Amino acid sequence: MTRFHLPESQLPTAWYNLLAHLDEPLDPPLHPATREPVGPDDLAPLFPMALIQQEMSPEPWIDIPGEVLDILKLWRPTPLVRAERLEAALGTPARIYFKDESVSPAGSHKPNTAVPQAFYNQQEGITRLATETGAGQWGSSLSFASAQFGLECKVYMVRASYEQKPYRKIMMQLWGADVVPSPVDDESSPGSLGAAISDAVRDTVGRADTHYALGSVLNHVCLHQTIIGLEAKDQLAAAGEANPDVIVASCGGGSNFAGIAFPFVKDDGVRLVAVEPASCPTLTEGRFEYDFGDVAGMTPLMAMYTLGHDFMPPSIHAGGLRYHGDSPIVSKLVRDGRAEAVAYPQGKVFEAAVQFANAEGKIPAPETAHAIRGAIDEALAAKETGEEKVILFNYSGHGHLDLAAYDDFMNGRLVDA
Amino acid sequence: MTRFHLPESQLPTAWYNLLAHLDEPLDPPLHPATREPVGPDDLAPLFPMALIQQEMSPEPWIDIPGEVLDILKLWRPTPLVRAERLEAALGTPARIYFKDESVSPAGSHKPNTAVPQAFYNQQEGITRLATETGAGQWGSSLSFASAQFGLECKVYMVRASYEQKPYRKIMMQLWGADVVPSPVDDESSPGSLGAAISDAVRDTVGRADTHYALGSVLNHVCLHQTIIGLEAKDQLAAAGEANPDVIVASCGGGSNFAGIAFPFVKDDGVRLVAVEPASCPTLTEGRFEYDFGDVAGMTPLMAMYTLGHDFMPPSIHAGGLRYHGDSPIVSKLVRDGRAEAVAYPQGKVFEAAVQFANAEGKIPAPETAHAIRGAIDEALAAKETGEEKVILFNYSGHGHLDLAAYDDFMNGRLVDA
Repeated sequence: MTRFHLPESQLPTAWYNLLAHLDEPLDPPLHPATREPVGPDDLAPLFPMALIQQEMSPEPWIDIPGEVLDILKLWRPTPLVRAERLEAALGTPARIYFKDESVSPAGSHKPNTAVPQAFYNQQEGITRLATETGAGQWGSSLSFASAQFGLECKVYMVRASYEQKPYRKIMMQLWGADVVPSPVDDESSPGSLGAAISDAVRDTVGRADTHYALGSVLNHVCLHQTIIGLEAKDQLAAAGEANPDVIVASCGGGSNFAGIAFPFVKDDGVRLVAVEPASCPTLTEGRFEYDFGDVAGMTPLMAMYTLGHDFMPPSIHAGGLRYHGDSPIVSKLVRDGRAEAVAYPQGKVFEAAVQFANAEGKIPAPETAHAIRGAIDEALAAKETGEEKVILFNYSGHGHLDLAAYDDFMNGRLVDA
Repeated sequence: MTRFHLPESQLPTAWYNLLAHLDEPLDPPLHPATREPVGPDDLAPLFPMALIQQEMSPEPWIDIPGEVLDILKLWRPTPLVRAERLEAALGTPARIYFKDESVSPAGSHKPNTAVPQAFYNQQEGITRLATETGAGQWGSSLSFASAQFGLECKVYMVRASYEQKPYRKIMMQLWGADVVPSPVDDESSPGSLGAAISDAVRDTVGRADTHYALGSVLNHVCLHQTIIGLEAKDQLAAAGEANPDVIVASCGGGSNFAGIAFPFVKDDGVRLVAVEPASCPTLTEGRFEYDFGDVAGMTPLMAMYTLGHDFMPPSIHAGGLRYHGDSPIVSKLVRDGRAEAVAYPQGKVFEAAVQFANAEGKIPAPETAHAIRGAIDEALAAKETGEEKVILFNYSGHGHLDLAAYDDFMNGRLVDA
């Protein structure tokens, strides 16, 4: 393993806005009641104007505020790592690199957007944020970010996770958040992400001091994550590499994939591969159409790949990938053929995770293990052809709080093997 | 926060052997039966000769084998970090640096010695290692290291931890170890570290293919950890600092303290502070005398600070610091006045941990939080005097698998607050 550290002085100071570089504009989001395109005012009860502007911005680059950079520097630039022991274990001529986003406070890429979201809300006078969380990656990231800017943070956590996965809840409380199980009005229900979104949105629209925050899907979230790919470009150059031949990332709502892939979309010769679970195959088996972002139909309709907003995926361990829809921009890249999508069952994903943990000494999150599976299969294909391919994947988070999933895998208890 | 990365090309290639630099030799270990000084042959059933030689070596530097460096490079050199947001939160003129050992595969400094121990055993034809573990930090480190050199690894885990803290057990299994609860012959007993050592030693002496491995206390373990302080010296220089005014580390068996402090022992003007729990106050309240390393009296007697080998500390969360004795070298430094020792109750320790987690975004292990408490108190003292003191502490491990302890703290359930 060789690590390429970017000096702090080379931390990117602007996000890359892929919206401004698309050949044709995105289909606009539609109001859930009128089915007319939504304008900034429709979104103002939920988000600060700075984020609404980013959601629709035609600017190719958007400056990262100094106050945000000051917090990001706690863990950024993140290392780019060459996985030489994994390469040796696979016997591949490919060179495998990964971007290590697991070093953040909450252990994933999610704080990259939680911090600017908290900042812009504080700037607009908001004193409290409400959000939902499933397994807790996003909730813990927003809790951390809120604490940095003195905001209160209320997290509606899917009840089943709240009861079965207490560690993420404790992490949120440690950073000062108020965490409650969702749905709030039905203690007998195990809950769902859709119901938790409804709880958070209801909380928000009832209070002038409060805004809502979302951890994926939306354009401004994908924008904030592009710092990953921008750093990776500079680090690959420092490693003596040209652009990678293929970039691999797991894909639930899309921000993980967006973060590492968007800065390379306009570059020729870079394949982009989004990896999703076979049990929630949005990009590989969904339809491209307008659909709601939530189960209850309270959000705007977005043009995206979707399994239907009432789709209930099985309870797989990669909770961060259990979403019926996908980022509209990512969806467009797949529909236009610029990005590929592939789906794997959990058993194949955890096999890759264990191989990686033994070769590189790092235990990945189940979500991240999807990207590892994809990267390993690219490397094995290169072994067949003898090609010295350069593979880059997003190591989006560690699995320290997901070890129970490994226990299930090692003991043959995976639902979707 | 500013991070100082040492290039991989500057990874130290030799360990610093403080034994060779002491003004007078250590009191020799004594055979448990004869009470005569033990020789290499007495230890040969337990350890490979390379480690036995290191245990008594007069060489000032000992080369790190290339095969060991190849594995250490998976996470070393580790970052040196300036905790600027913590400094600001404290309002101190002191500059606080920490060495981040949490980035290792098992999440602590323990793999620094697990890797060379596994290597030397494999070189001597040993195919299997046996060890004990309490909360699991050491067991997971040796599991990882054994996997790298193709050795089997058997871990006797204190039964109470085995049942209450399954995540560390899963981590060990993921790296291929065979983990069983201890004591093996009494399923009704919650177990103790002393009993687990006895289980592991009994396993070892009965099998020619097997050796025993210990994660702290012994001279060769402290030796392997000096890579921490050696890197820190180079990184402080890169940060434009002279030697630190004070070095702070938590101290259970002593290897954590040894790792960061030993390379600075011969330097004038560097205070060395070992921090221990008030409920297991070995250095601050123990007696300096010959005592056994284990409860059953099977190990050699060592001259060290001890609370008595039958001392049973309360079940505090910093399981890694619950040891009745201490490294003979560390004990000597304290007795001779070269190092200071201070003890804190858990409540004060967790207060510091939460303050650190909010300022720097990193959640420390309870053991590590002892060093943070010590460092914060040094910084507050500097605030009183207005001194621009440079403080260095060992961030020996993350607390991702210790979040239940934080829950107890936040909910007033600490035994020793």
